Amino acid sequence: MTQSTNFDDVYPVQWRDDQVILIDQTRLPLEYKEVAIADYEAMGHAIKSMVVRGAPAIGVAAAYGMYLGARRIQTTELREFVVQLEFVADQLRQTRPTAVNLFWAIDQMLNVAYHSGENVEQIKANLLSQAQQIQLDDLRTCQAIGAAGLEVLPREPHQLTILTHCNAGALATAGYGTAIGVIRAAWSAGRLARVYADETRPRLQGAKLTVWECVQAGIPVTLITDNMAAHCMQQQRIDAVVVGADRIARNGDIANKIGTYGLAVLAKMHAIPFFVAAPLSTVDFALDDGSQIPIEERDPVEIYQPEGNRITPEGAEFYNPAFDVTPASLITAIITEQGAIAPEKLADLQA
Amino acid sequence: MTQSTNFDDVYPVQWRDDQVILIDQTRLPLEYKEVAIADYEAMGHAIKSMVVRGAPAIGVAAAYGMYLGARRIQTTELREFVVQLEFVADQLRQTRPTAVNLFWAIDQMLNVAYHSGENVEQIKANLLSQAQQIQLDDLRTCQAIGAAGLEVLPREPHQLTILTHCNAGALATAGYGTAIGVIRAAWSAGRLARVYADETRPRLQGAKLTVWECVQAGIPVTLITDNMAAHCMQQQRIDAVVVGADRIARNGDIANKIGTYGLAVLAKMHAIPFFVAAPLSTVDFALDDGSQIPIEERDPVEIYQPEGNRITPEGAEFYNPAFDVTPASLITAIITEQGAIAPEKLADLQA
Repeated sequence: MTQSTNFDDVYPVQWRDDQVILIDQTRLPLEYKEVAIADYEAMGHAIKSMVVRGAPAIGVAAAYGMYLGARRIQTTELREFVVQLEFVADQLRQTRPTAVNLFWAIDQMLNVAYHSGENVEQIKANLLSQAQQIQLDDLRTCQAIGAAGLEVLPREPHQLTILTHCNAGALATAGYGTAIGVIRAAWSAGRLARVYADETRPRLQGAKLTVWECVQAGIPVTLITDNMAAHCMQQQRIDAVVVGADRIARNGDIANKIGTYGLAVLAKMHAIPFFVAAPLSTVDFALDDGSQIPIEERDPVEIYQPEGNRITPEGAEFYNPAFDVTPASLITAIITEQGAIAPEKLADLQA
Repeated sequence: MTQSTNFDDVYPVQWRDDQVILIDQTRLPLEYKEVAIADYEAMGHAIKSMVVRGAPAIGVAAAYGMYLGARRIQTTELREFVVQLEFVADQLRQTRPTAVNLFWAIDQMLNVAYHSGENVEQIKANLLSQAQQIQLDDLRTCQAIGAAGLEVLPREPHQLTILTHCNAGALATAGYGTAIGVIRAAWSAGRLARVYADETRPRLQGAKLTVWECVQAGIPVTLITDNMAAHCMQQQRIDAVVVGADRIARNGDIANKIGTYGLAVLAKMHAIPFFVAAPLSTVDFALDDGSQIPIEERDPVEIYQPEGNRITPEGAEFYNPAFDVTPASLITAIITEQGAIAPEKLADLQA
């Protein structure tokens, strides 16, 4: 049904033959299809329509999108080049409002344009190098997050059952994954019994992407609907919850895929540790707390027409927030590439 | 898109022209179709495949199923008649294990056979009368539950926003509904602003049936995915939660559609009152607590193939419990036809 792929080879964003190759995540798991992206408009559309999704992967994709925009700029005059590149940046920023990695990666790329000399051709070459560096750094970051997660997972039982939500996996990053990076590290160390994957309505990233990644990696995975998580916790099937994050405020509040907040409340009530795995680039030190994180609302068609079939009658209204905010008080630790950190200690890193 | 129907006319089980007419709830809301049921085997299949569903409606349907079985029995010899009717009862009992109303209604019908004389033809007539009485009683019970619910809903704000899960509506009962009965009563009294309906995966009874009933009745309804309920509570959009029940233990623990337990935990954490609306026939005084309630597991196809489209790759496992158990400690009150009762007071009713 799906192309056989070793999990080490799952890279949602690749630079190949002078263009970006994306795995089309709207077609997984039933079809493994790559999409070639040759200009920044196509990249913007791919981000908005979730061909590529997941906060770190969006950052990598946006970095390449900046390069694609840059290389098409005709002028050799630096000031004009920068003006045109800032226009590209503005377009890409408008694709997804919640993931901070998008803004972070775009700013990294703009800084290269601002600070690497006067020669536009050289700047363009530097921009490609920077995008590739962001990608490589993210892959290494994910591997470091996995190792840090392994250190902080509960000691008992030896083989853990971990619940995850949405897809914070290889597909959501440059590769390996954040939450799924922790899961991969636990699996490699013989400390994982099984993953429970929330299907994650409305877009079913858990059912489609997390299950696909686990199957590719040979990790036992049980798929449940989102509303079964509480029952599984009550039945003591779950030893830990590990999720990703799209943005983290300096007080340790996190925004992640809708449903994360409910899971965190349930984990607290069942005394199950609740971990957030995310690179430090996800932390937005400009935000005092989670109430300042903008929450994207998406098209209600995602709710009333799952998989293309309308399920509800005319006359209903809909509410479709794509993310929710989990307060720091519900989070056991934030697992970063610099180790696991208590959420209230996050602000110390800024100094 | 749907046939225009006044909500007072929504009766999922009707006796008409010597047969039972069911609204096919697997086709709602996109198609309003009635199914004629002429023998008990067809009724058993309709219950199992959820053409008719909802604990009280299953009870009414099973009562008529008993009559359909009885009328086909050829013998005029009482003992032989009872043996054959008990076989019918056994077949119907095996359709859905969790709803106590099924067993209650079958026992009511058997009691008629045991205790209404020697004449088999007269017993058959009495069985039809009994099924009709069970149906009428359930309709009156639901209206009484609605009135009792109105008494116990929060005083503030005057116009409430009520979250419900699955469908405990007219379609789940003889008519009017239990949880939706409370909602209808609040709407009629001018005390309802809006319903939030959980879509209720895997079978989407909220998206399909509750939304349909609300639209039919002109009640404003906002559909959300199950994992959005916590976020809506956090945003203070929800004033009360009202759900139904499939079985209630004597200590006040309740079994209801999967996802109910999680909602109850979330309501508690947000100090939102959590009501269970159910007829007293739902109480199983033989059970000390909820751990003794059998939980039906259904075919995983409901999870991996929503609306007929496969969403997951081969190689995953699935867990598909149809119900969960909510402990009495999370329930503000159980709303019955005899008024709202604190769950811990339920056992007093047995005396």
